[in-house]
Amino acid sequence: MPPHFFVSLPAPSLSLLPPPTTTISLSLSSLSPPPPPTNRGRTTTVRSSMEDRRRSRVSLFPPLPHRDLMLDVISAVDSRLSPHLLPSSVPSDVLSFRNPTGSSLGSLDIRRGSPASSVDFMLESWLHCRLPTGALDITTLLAFLNGSTDAPHLMMELIQASPTALVLLLDLLPRKDLPLHQHYLDDFYHRTQLDRQRQQLESLPQVRPYRSPSLYVRSIFSPTAVAVAVDCGEGAESVMEDIVRARLGSVAREYVRVWSDECACSTKQMEASETAHMRRRDGLIKAKAIEIDLSANLPRLFGPDVSNRVVAEIQKAFGEQR
Amino acid sequence: MPPHFFVSLPAPSLSLLPPPTTTISLSLSSLSPPPPPTNRGRTTTVRSSMEDRRRSRVSLFPPLPHRDLMLDVISAVDSRLSPHLLPSSVPSDVLSFRNPTGSSLGSLDIRRGSPASSVDFMLESWLHCRLPTGALDITTLLAFLNGSTDAPHLMMELIQASPTALVLLLDLLPRKDLPLHQHYLDDFYHRTQLDRQRQQLESLPQVRPYRSPSLYVRSIFSPTAVAVAVDCGEGAESVMEDIVRARLGSVAREYVRVWSDECACSTKQMEASETAHMRRRDGLIKAKAIEIDLSANLPRLFGPDVSNRVVAEIQKAFGEQR
Repeated sequence: MPPHFFVSLPAPSLSLLPPPTTTISLSLSSLSPPPPPTNRGRTTTVRSSMEDRRRSRVSLFPPLPHRDLMLDVISAVDSRLSPHLLPSSVPSDVLSFRNPTGSSLGSLDIRRGSPASSVDFMLESWLHCRLPTGALDITTLLAFLNGSTDAPHLMMELIQASPTALVLLLDLLPRKDLPLHQHYLDDFYHRTQLDRQRQQLESLPQVRPYRSPSLYVRSIFSPTAVAVAVDCGEGAESVMEDIVRARLGSVAREYVRVWSDECACSTKQMEASETAHMRRRDGLIKAKAIEIDLSANLPRLFGPDVSNRVVAEIQKAFGEQR
Repeated sequence: MPPHFFVSLPAPSLSLLPPPTTTISLSLSSLSPPPPPTNRGRTTTVRSSMEDRRRSRVSLFPPLPHRDLMLDVISAVDSRLSPHLLPSSVPSDVLSFRNPTGSSLGSLDIRRGSPASSVDFMLESWLHCRLPTGALDITTLLAFLNGSTDAPHLMMELIQASPTALVLLLDLLPRKDLPLHQHYLDDFYHRTQLDRQRQQLESLPQVRPYRSPSLYVRSIFSPTAVAVAVDCGEGAESVMEDIVRARLGSVAREYVRVWSDECACSTKQMEASETAHMRRRDGLIKAKAIEIDLSANLPRLFGPDVSNRVVAEIQKAFGEQR
C-alpha cells in the first residue's frame, strides 16, 4: 500500500454522463437538518441534482463494499452543510480525471463555506488505481471549519486494497493542543463518548488497530480516532460487506452525528491571538497533507499534468481560510 | 485493573533493612556516562550505596518478571542522571509505606535535579496491592526535564496483573504541540527510529496495542509511544519471563538510550514566552497525573494518612520546576 495522508484524489469524462433523475434514499438522511424555510423547494432540488451528479460520477468506480458507505456519509455531511456551502468551482477536468493509460481514475470536488458560515471547505475525493500489486481504492472526506470556531474538523478515509481488506481512518481532528486544553478534550471527545464506538469496532475479530506510517498523521489525530485495518480473509467478501454496512456504517454515522451536532455550525468568541494561532496550526496540517500525500503520490499515479491541476485546486481551497 | 495514569506508588520499614554490600551488575550499565573526574571514587561509592538501598527496598516486592527489568532501567537512568541529581529528600515513611492491613505496599523516591542541570526530577515508584481480584503490581519511572530544554521527558510504567499478563507504557513525552512543530517530531521521534522498536514488539503474537482508559493520558503520548498489553496465557510464566527479559528489555533499553543521548542533558535557548508556555504545559500534565492516578486511587489503597504523605511529596516535586 503506498503511503497516504488522509487526502486522496479524484474520474474522467464522468461529468459527460447525464445525471440520473431518480431520488436516492440515504441511510444517513436523518442527520440532515431541515433546509431553511425560504427557497425550500429550490434548495432541495439543487441538492438532489448535486447528489445525482455525485452518484453518477462515483458509479464508474468499482462497486466495492465501501463505496455505498462513503456515498451515504458524504451525502449526509453535504446535506448538513449544504445551506452553508458555496457552489463548487472545481473544473470538470478535476471533478473527473484519469491517467494517460486509463489505469488510474479519480474525482475531486471541493465546496467552500459561505462567508458568514463556520465552514472552511468540504472536500471529497475518490481514487481508483490499478497497480502491479492489485487495485487500490481510496476515498476521503474532509470537512474543515474556519476561524470563527475552534471545534474539530471531520475527516474520514477508506483505503481498500482488496475486496476483503481495508483501512478506515475516522476522526474529529482537534484544533487545540489537548494537554493544554482539557475542557476541549472533555467537550468534544469525553462527553460525546466517541471512544465507545472505537472500542466496539476493535472488539471484532477481523479488526485490528492500524497505525499510519506517517508520524505526523498520527500526531494530528485525537485520542478517540478510529484507525483500524479490517481483514476478512480470502473469499470472505460477504463478511466484509456485512462489516462495512453494519459495523463501520454505525460508527461512521455516530461520528458524523456528533460532528454535525457539536461542531459543524458552532461559533466561538476567541482572542485574536488565539484565532491566529489556531489558523497557523490548521495551515500547517493542510500544507503537510499536500506534501505527504499529494505531492508524493499524484505525479506517480496520474502524471504531472493531471497532478498539477488537482493539487492546484486543493491548494486553492487550503490556502484561503477565513 | 483500576484506572491509572503513569504515576504510581510506593514498601514499609524496608528502609530499616541493612543495605547489601555487594555490587550488582546492570545490563544497562553501558548507558552510564563516566562520572566527572573529580570525586570519582566518592561518586561511585554514593551511587553504589543508593543502588544497594534501592535493591534492598525492592526485594520485598514480588519477584515478578518485570521487577528486574524495571530495576535495570531505573538504575541506568539513575546512573546517567546521577551527577545532575540532588540527594533524595523523601522521608522514610514515603520511601517505604504500606496500608494498615498490610495488603498493599509501596515505595516512592524522588530526586530533584541540581540547580545548574536540565533535570527537573527523577521519580521512581513501586506499588504492590492484593486486591479481591488478585495482585496488582505497578512500577513507574519518570524523568522530567526543566525549562532549560524543550527535549522530551522519559516515562515508563509496567502494570502487572498476573505472572503472565502485563501492560507496558513507554514514551518520550513531547513537550510541544507536534502538529505545530515538525522539526521537533523529526528530531526526537522520526530520526531516532523509535517506531521500529514499537513495531517489532507489536509483531509478537502475545502482544497487542493497549489504550489507556484516560483520554488525557492518550493525548500526552507521542506518536511512537509503546502502549502494549502482553498476555501469554495461563501457565506460560516462562514465556512471559523470556518476553520481558529479551523483548521488552531490548525496547526499553533503546528508548532509554535515545533519551539519554538526545534529551537528558540537552539545553536549548528559547524565548521567555516559549519557555513559559512549555512550563505551563508541563505543569498541567503533572497536575493531571496527580488528579487521575494518585488522588483517585491512593486513599482507596492505602488510607488517607499514607495517601496524603505520598501525594504531598509528589506535589512538592511537581510544583517546583525551574
